[in-house]
Amino acid sequence: MAQRNVINASVSPKGSLETLSQREVQQLSEAGSASIYKLFRQCALAILNTGAHIDNAKTILDAYQDFEVRIHQQDRGVRLELLNAPADAFVDGEMIASTREMLFSALRDIVYTENELDSQRIDLSSSEGITDYVFHLLRNARTLRPGLEPKMVVCWGGHSINTDEYKYTKKVGHELGLRSLDICTGCGPGVMKGPMKGATIAHAKQRINNSRYLGLTEPGIIAAEAPNPIVNELVIMPDIEKRLEAFVRVGHGIIVFPGGAGTAEEFLYLLGILMHPDNSELPFPVILTGPKSAAAFIQQLHSFVGATLGEQAQSHYKIIIDNPAEVAREMTAGLKAVKQFRRERNDAFHFNWLLKIDESLQRPFDPTHENMASLQLNRDLPAHELAANLRRAFSGVVAGNVKDKGIRLIEEKGPYQIHGDKAVMQPLDELLQAFVDQHRMKLPGGADYVPCYRVVK
Amino acid sequence: MAQRNVINASVSPKGSLETLSQREVQQLSEAGSASIYKLFRQCALAILNTGAHIDNAKTILDAYQDFEVRIHQQDRGVRLELLNAPADAFVDGEMIASTREMLFSALRDIVYTENELDSQRIDLSSSEGITDYVFHLLRNARTLRPGLEPKMVVCWGGHSINTDEYKYTKKVGHELGLRSLDICTGCGPGVMKGPMKGATIAHAKQRINNSRYLGLTEPGIIAAEAPNPIVNELVIMPDIEKRLEAFVRVGHGIIVFPGGAGTAEEFLYLLGILMHPDNSELPFPVILTGPKSAAAFIQQLHSFVGATLGEQAQSHYKIIIDNPAEVAREMTAGLKAVKQFRRERNDAFHFNWLLKIDESLQRPFDPTHENMASLQLNRDLPAHELAANLRRAFSGVVAGNVKDKGIRLIEEKGPYQIHGDKAVMQPLDELLQAFVDQHRMKLPGGADYVPCYRVVK
Amino acid sequence: MAQRNVINASVSPKGSLETLSQREVQQLSEAGSASIYKLFRQCALAILNTGAHIDNAKTILDAYQDFEVRIHQQDRGVRLELLNAPADAFVDGEMIASTREMLFSALRDIVYTENELDSQRIDLSSSEGITDYVFHLLRNARTLRPGLEPKMVVCWGGHSINTDEYKYTKKVGHELGLRSLDICTGCGPGVMKGPMKGATIAHAKQRINNSRYLGLTEPGIIAAEAPNPIVNELVIMPDIEKRLEAFVRVGHGIIVFPGGAGTAEEFLYLLGILMHPDNSELPFPVILTGPKSAAAFIQQLHSFVGATLGEQAQSHYKIIIDNPAEVAREMTAGLKAVKQFRRERNDAFHFNWLLKIDESLQRPFDPTHENMASLQLNRDLPAHELAANLRRAFSGVVAGNVKDKGIRLIEEKGPYQIHGDKAVMQPLDELLQAFVDQHRMKLPGGADYVPCYRVVK
Amino acid sequence: MAQRNVINASVSPKGSLETLSQREVQQLSEAGSASIYKLFRQCALAILNTGAHIDNAKTILDAYQDFEVRIHQQDRGVRLELLNAPADAFVDGEMIASTREMLFSALRDIVYTENELDSQRIDLSSSEGITDYVFHLLRNARTLRPGLEPKMVVCWGGHSINTDEYKYTKKVGHELGLRSLDICTGCGPGVMKGPMKGATIAHAKQRINNSRYLGLTEPGIIAAEAPNPIVNELVIMPDIEKRLEAFVRVGHGIIVFPGGAGTAEEFLYLLGILMHPDNSELPFPVILTGPKSAAAFIQQLHSFVGATLGEQAQSHYKIIIDNPAEVAREMTAGLKAVKQFRRERNDAFHFNWLLKIDESLQRPFDPTHENMASLQLNRDLPAHELAANLRRAFSGVVAGNVKDKGIRLIEEKGPYQIHGDKAVMQPLDELLQAFVDQHRMKLPGGADYVPCYRVVK
Repeated sequence: MAQRNVINASVSPKGSLETLSQREVQQLSEAGSASIYKLFRQCALAILNTGAHIDNAKTILDAYQDFEVRIHQQDRGVRLELLNAPADAFVDGEMIASTREMLFSALRDIVYTENELDSQRIDLSSSEGITDYVFHLLRNARTLRPGLEPKMVVCWGGHSINTDEYKYTKKVGHELGLRSLDICTGCGPGVMKGPMKGATIAHAKQRINNSRYLGLTEPGIIAAEAPNPIVNELVIMPDIEKRLEAFVRVGHGIIVFPGGAGTAEEFLYLLGILMHPDNSELPFPVILTGPKSAAAFIQQLHSFVGATLGEQAQSHYKIIIDNPAEVAREMTAGLKAVKQFRRERNDAFHFNWLLKIDESLQRPFDPTHENMASLQLNRDLPAHELAANLRRAFSGVVAGNVKDKGIRLIEEKGPYQIHGDKAVMQPLDELLQAFVDQHRMKLPGGADYVPCYRVVK
Repeated sequence: MAQRNVINASVSPKGSLETLSQREVQQLSEAGSASIYKLFRQCALAILNTGAHIDNAKTILDAYQDFEVRIHQQDRGVRLELLNAPADAFVDGEMIASTREMLFSALRDIVYTENELDSQRIDLSSSEGITDYVFHLLRNARTLRPGLEPKMVVCWGGHSINTDEYKYTKKVGHELGLRSLDICTGCGPGVMKGPMKGATIAHAKQRINNSRYLGLTEPGIIAAEAPNPIVNELVIMPDIEKRLEAFVRVGHGIIVFPGGAGTAEEFLYLLGILMHPDNSELPFPVILTGPKSAAAFIQQLHSFVGATLGEQAQSHYKIIIDNPAEVAREMTAGLKAVKQFRRERNDAFHFNWLLKIDESLQRPFDPTHENMASLQLNRDLPAHELAANLRRAFSGVVAGNVKDKGIRLIEEKGPYQIHGDKAVMQPLDELLQAFVDQHRMKLPGGADYVPCYRVVK
Repeated sequence: MAQRNVINASVSPKGSLETLSQREVQQLSEAGSASIYKLFRQCALAILNTGAHIDNAKTILDAYQDFEVRIHQQDRGVRLELLNAPADAFVDGEMIASTREMLFSALRDIVYTENELDSQRIDLSSSEGITDYVFHLLRNARTLRPGLEPKMVVCWGGHSINTDEYKYTKKVGHELGLRSLDICTGCGPGVMKGPMKGATIAHAKQRINNSRYLGLTEPGIIAAEAPNPIVNELVIMPDIEKRLEAFVRVGHGIIVFPGGAGTAEEFLYLLGILMHPDNSELPFPVILTGPKSAAAFIQQLHSFVGATLGEQAQSHYKIIIDNPAEVAREMTAGLKAVKQFRRERNDAFHFNWLLKIDESLQRPFDPTHENMASLQLNRDLPAHELAANLRRAFSGVVAGNVKDKGIRLIEEKGPYQIHGDKAVMQPLDELLQAFVDQHRMKLPGGADYVPCYRVVK
Repeated sequence: MAQRNVINASVSPKGSLETLSQREVQQLSEAGSASIYKLFRQCALAILNTGAHIDNAKTILDAYQDFEVRIHQQDRGVRLELLNAPADAFVDGEMIASTREMLFSALRDIVYTENELDSQRIDLSSSEGITDYVFHLLRNARTLRPGLEPKMVVCWGGHSINTDEYKYTKKVGHELGLRSLDICTGCGPGVMKGPMKGATIAHAKQRINNSRYLGLTEPGIIAAEAPNPIVNELVIMPDIEKRLEAFVRVGHGIIVFPGGAGTAEEFLYLLGILMHPDNSELPFPVILTGPKSAAAFIQQLHSFVGATLGEQAQSHYKIIIDNPAEVAREMTAGLKAVKQFRRERNDAFHFNWLLKIDESLQRPFDPTHENMASLQLNRDLPAHELAANLRRAFSGVVAGNVKDKGIRLIEEKGPYQIHGDKAVMQPLDELLQAFVDQHRMKLPGGADYVPCYRVVK
């Protein structure tokens, strides 16, 4: 980060729907609640950093230590004053509209999340309570829109992918867009951007101008995966598990592209849910896809699932290699089944109430060295429990790679130790090694990747 | 209510933005929380009763004892099932769009109000806390829209007025609409409808199609003053005092037309605020107006203010007789000053944070016979305290006239006793008598008006 | 016209879609083509005179002899400079948006009509050619919109009606609007305004904000029947016959309210068409309606049709007295049949190509004293020819009553002489006398009505 | 064109605003006017061929000899029946919305152009008359919109460019789009597509959803340069010269990217205009730009201008190499000057009336062998005349390369002979040779390029 252009600016909420009470404005001010201010400052910095090719939250936070954001009440709503802000989000001194919108979305979500936690209504100790909380956060962000057909396609995959794979995600997005489907991603670069870009062009061709590009993130990941500016709905969920739940409750189908540890985490989370007996009749289209050059990688991921969770797990997704139109057609067919099912069962199109998520997948996992070391990774566990634990293992790797807190932990205590069954450890080690070899762990450009974990067979 | 056409219907939330969680749906079901269900049923009945010329909540509730409303989750959102519903809100079996919207607005407000009260954040023991609560209710109802110029004109006045006065309110609304102003009323018939109707025609002439017709009501009054269907934003505040605060914080200027006890209540509330020393520099346009035939009545109201609160109170409003265009021009000029002031002081256009409302005006007043009897109504009180107490006296009269609970109380215990200074009692008695003589207390058509109060001099 | 407020103003085309070429600007300038300028000036004056209760073109033209309008090309399109313009169309010095739009609509139509006549493509000597011309004029005015369902209801009736009848037209318009129907009228006051006003309120209740209020006029009538400002599409057809053809080709159903000679002209024109054998299978809903107080008048009109054109003519319409909801329901049912028919026959929803209009009804009739005197009005003519001639007779009476040219002719040569069969003359005389007695000929307020015709039995 | 997927389909005008009269429908039918049908069939085929990488009109027409299009009047407007249509424009059997729109735009323009020529108003013998005709065609296509700021940027350049240059045009488009500018091109592939694609992404980022992507084409070129589907306004001008005039009257500034003979034609046309003494004070921003790899080519073009038209010609444009943001900033500054100028001179933003175009540049040039051979290309001609003749020479080369008629002529009679001054011939020969060497003449993929001309020094 040699070059570091900064700018001071005052941003009005033009076009934003967000308003704040005086108490909220005060909470967010530096003098108010230190923790909320810090959180908002960090998210704002990430949002402003859009387009920068960095996936290391610590680097970004360190680079802009003198960045400040101040909040003022004024005639047309709340005004943000930015000091020493990254210049990338500005065109000739004026902030890009999408960035402005995202700043106000971050305000909205952070304030709401904080305030909700005060409510006795929120019960984070039960599975239903957590789901209810996720619902409220999404509703407050206006993500839940009654009356829309099921057409929100979640695209998962790496933020660090090669050009060939990136182009492929654009093509898939284009084919999805031609079929009037909307896109939801983790809102960062790479696979999180490609499908949105492709769909934008396709929606223009189809004269659709109310298309949705939904980005779901959380405070720990946003700095590492700065929201791409095509996102026109940004929601900052309070933690990883809420974000994952939001993906599967709001998305109507999921496409998994090549990726690294984060993608594996998401994929295992999804399999853990779909394998739950309560969900056996519930249609949920999942497609694993990539360009020809990624065929071997996809095969390896598929084998990993087979080796650890078994054939039944493999039956929950389809593999399509190098055929964007086919991916889109398959998804369209899958969404039809989803629509039919929700209609029959009287479930909302906008929120998948009927999907059962086991509490073990909902409870936050804190990737300390202790927690990582004590993960049970044995084939004799019930498959959906093993899936949940593998999800946690990958979650730890992501934290150690790109999150501020995780990086600091690794710097201090050395790599995580991951123990388990050889039948699980062997394919896990191979998969992680493939991630490393194929530069899927981190954006290229930095030094060689130094693993933040050690698989102990 | 001889003829009582009823209909069974199933209403989808087409066009509505509201969604509910499963917990909320359950809360609202009859089996859920009896009190919420009862509240929603009562509001729904009132909304469906639109257009009926009845202002007696008890009558309506009694007439439709077998009315039921059931709530179901379904694919496109929440569906309402109505049994034995008043047929007036339907055209050839299909519900009028505005009525449908209002039903879902009621759902939204009732659920939110209930849930908010669980929150530790809500502090109803302080003035700031109450204001914050009002803000949250309005924001949740999407009433607070950043970026709009100050142009929300509140129109107060009677639900029971004569044809001449009704036509005059339409004309004033027309002149306001020609100047692109929006209208906010208590959302019932009479003065609450006329200005909206006039403005609708004027907005059509000015090709404005995002005009706002904001109706603010509360559960006790809604049944007596069924929302008129031009209202395109309905907000149900939890009680009278929150509703009054919403009027003065959201409205940018206020026009007072002839009315009865309710209008007097509103007018005194407003004067109580504007006379507060903290508001001495704050511009707030208030116009007292009516057709030529109402000149005497307006003069009497003006004299009453002079006699009880003094000349200073009279300086807070202008009187314009029989000149709709002049009313609109005066209001337009006043709004300019408001805009200028808010800009200079960095106050929001959408919420009047700087307006000081004394806690005595914010605290709910329960019009029991005891509370009414012990009201202090003496000229030696500070003027703004006397205003607050007079406000309460009129509030009690309204309750005794049209509210379900008040009517039952009067039936049981006889009329309220109002005591006080002769200097206050004399003009009060005369004003109340004028209300009675001029049929301003109740909609005509019923039996002769029997006062629910007795002024004890 | 004692008081004559005038104003000078410069009007930009804000919101208008119209652009002019330099040649067209020059044509319209006073120095350009005297006749076009005169025509535009006259229409502009009429449009600006909106709201004035005058139905005498000559009076208006005389009252504003110093009115001038100049046209300039400028950055944002064409700008109009108005000198000594009637002040009614302005609110605090700014022109009402609808009036501004109408001025630019007039520009558009006058220029287009003039230029089209230069085209060899236009063939006014054949029935098909005239229809084609009407189509082109309407298309250029953007009146023909593919994709809309049949829901344009034409309302015919008098500009000079009593309060009771006016209120009834509002109620009918309200019921039509509640059923999402659009309104088309001759765009003046009275019956031409009432239904639009009622529908505006109903459309607001139904949250419809793309409703159409189509006004069809022609240069001779516009000054006498100034467009009411609710009209949001104004089209100035070149003459009466083109205007009549526009009504029946664009409207999907027609409601006839009480009126005078103009209404009779329209009604007979319509019957002349519907009685044509080629139209025998074509559904075209026509309803004759009015309040209870107008029942006798409607009966008389009905009898007149029976006496002159026979029972078959009477079968083409339904009579509904004092029942606005029933009128709207009946019309809705009729429109369903129209939709079905057009779909089956592949006819456009936006233009009734299949309707046969005999050339005798399309050819312009010039109401000179000679032409009026030589009209054949005998029962032994084929019924549709007699209808055509009666239409002409009434057309002459309208001209003599309210049109500039007609009034000047009558001033010069005395009343028209109308000859014919006693079997026709008798009921004609009675009908005309009823028009006079019931003040349906002219707006009240002027001197007593002096007939411009003499029925010679 | 080995593979040739075809499809039969019926296309309704959903979303299109176009309506046709029965006469027009008949004109367009095969039985109607052979020439109009042929023209429409050819344009329709080109539009349907979108995305195919072919630039040879003859090839396309030959490949789909059995393609047919039939036009039917129906309830919702005009329906098109397509037989043996290229399958590319369909997604899972449904036509892409933009393609559908373009088909109806073609209908509109072809019918209007034909009908206008019948009008005595059209005077193609004078310069003013031609300009008036261009205005009418554009107005009928709804291209002229009053009230919009000057922000239409024309991008000229080759349809056959390399990947590096293509990416550069996307980047420039992106920077223009970030500054809210609209894009106008010749609507084919290459430079005609890149800027639109880049701007689409940028407009999404800036939340602009009424952006304009205007494609101007003509029947001879459309088949060779199939409209790219981002174009959301397609206008088919009747010939090259009208199309060129449309570019300079509707565009507010022009960016010239690398290209071949067509680009040279456009550039010389523009210089011929800007060098006219009448235009000396008129601001018209022109930027010549390309990526680093194109610097040499741009230098050569610049030198060619200097050598043939002199230094004064070079002063009419700026050269910017490899700096998309700078191009956009320079254009933004230029547009500001344009806005200022039009405002001062009262010229329309939507049509550059004040620009003087010499009749010699407006008159159609028919590139027969005789006309090409007799072109005067000498340095002693006035510079703007030489520019006009050079424009014609390049126009001939384009015809010989890609147009159906031109290709057939060359097949028959061999290459064109171009004579002239050595001082002109030498640089001309070198420039044309550079076009050939750099594959700028034709899309790669076919056989080696065989020149359709011979420069005779």
